[in-house]
Amino acid sequence: MKIAVGLVHYPILDRHKKIVATNVTNLDVHDIARASRVYGISKYYIIHPMADQRTFVARMLDHWRVGDGSQFNPMRKTALTMVDTKESLEAAIDDWNRIEGRTDRPLVVSTHARALDGVPMISFRDMRAKIEASRAKEGSTDRMFLIFGTGFGLTEEFMRGCDLLLEPVRGAPPDDYRHLSVRSAVSIILDRLCGAW
Amino acid sequence: MKIAVGLVHYPILDRHKKIVATNVTNLDVHDIARASRVYGISKYYIIHPMADQRTFVARMLDHWRVGDGSQFNPMRKTALTMVDTKESLEAAIDDWNRIEGRTDRPLVVSTHARALDGVPMISFRDMRAKIEASRAKEGSTDRMFLIFGTGFGLTEEFMRGCDLLLEPVRGAPPDDYRHLSVRSAVSIILDRLCGAW
Repeated sequence: MKIAVGLVHYPILDRHKKIVATNVTNLDVHDIARASRVYGISKYYIIHPMADQRTFVARMLDHWRVGDGSQFNPMRKTALTMVDTKESLEAAIDDWNRIEGRTDRPLVVSTHARALDGVPMISFRDMRAKIEASRAKEGSTDRMFLIFGTGFGLTEEFMRGCDLLLEPVRGAPPDDYRHLSVRSAVSIILDRLCGAW
Repeated sequence: MKIAVGLVHYPILDRHKKIVATNVTNLDVHDIARASRVYGISKYYIIHPMADQRTFVARMLDHWRVGDGSQFNPMRKTALTMVDTKESLEAAIDDWNRIEGRTDRPLVVSTHARALDGVPMISFRDMRAKIEASRAKEGSTDRMFLIFGTGFGLTEEFMRGCDLLLEPVRGAPPDDYRHLSVRSAVSIILDRLCGAW
């Protein structure tokens, strides 16, 4: 199974539950690209509706992929090869389809810190088993688009448009604190789904 | 088993294998504190020999723990309660001992992206089993100090002073890319050792 990761910056909730577009964070690009590379992710899309935010990311990618940064740190260049920016999830799916020569829709799996009524939830064990079964199958064409929110999380409406919701990463007892950074959440979730240990 | 996390900024290798002190990175404080809170870590020590770097961290902690930041984002305050700065690993162990009323030395476990001759390596499964066995034992007083390097990693001499080296986090075939950010590495390793799923 091929996997793409999407980091969504709109529609996102802020601390007051208002719908906003968040700014792209430099280390979200780097840390998530490096984790994606470690776990064999095919594409990492930074999804933002505003052109100036996508331009900011494109300039950073240029610096590390072809500019001075590519000489300074070639390992960073390697990690950033699969990163791209798109204005929406639909545009990202279209781009991935174009690259893969496909016209169908990948399985779209959202992540969230809490369960949500109305979206079927899949456990880490079941999702990992699904990925392993697909990879063991000769000629499998299965694909998954794994979605992460920024800010205070994806809107319920956005998540209801996804096929599945992945089980939340629980915190340790007794207080069940779940406020991981998105960089940590992506790393942990990719390791649970694709890590070898 | 109680666990402390240490993020070491000296002695660290740079890209040319020279021994340097790295600067503290803002998001290393936040992301690792949040992950530590999620996984029930007792203390998170930011270890740096230079007083001005420790002062920088102390000011940031003040902002979020008692200043404007504590009103703006109380969840961040919660995560940062267990963070402290010390000038060396030994000073951090002394501080943890003082808090716990102990005089013995915790098990000191280093992490690294590669194996290293001369330091016994422990697998994630064995380390997790050790933690679970200790936690299941009534009145256990076991403690572990888990060490992470910054920059291009801890020096061999430093790692040889630790009791154990934790198995590296491997990358996906075929290229076995292992250049995770330290923020990602801490998150993944704490999840493997203490995560519930």
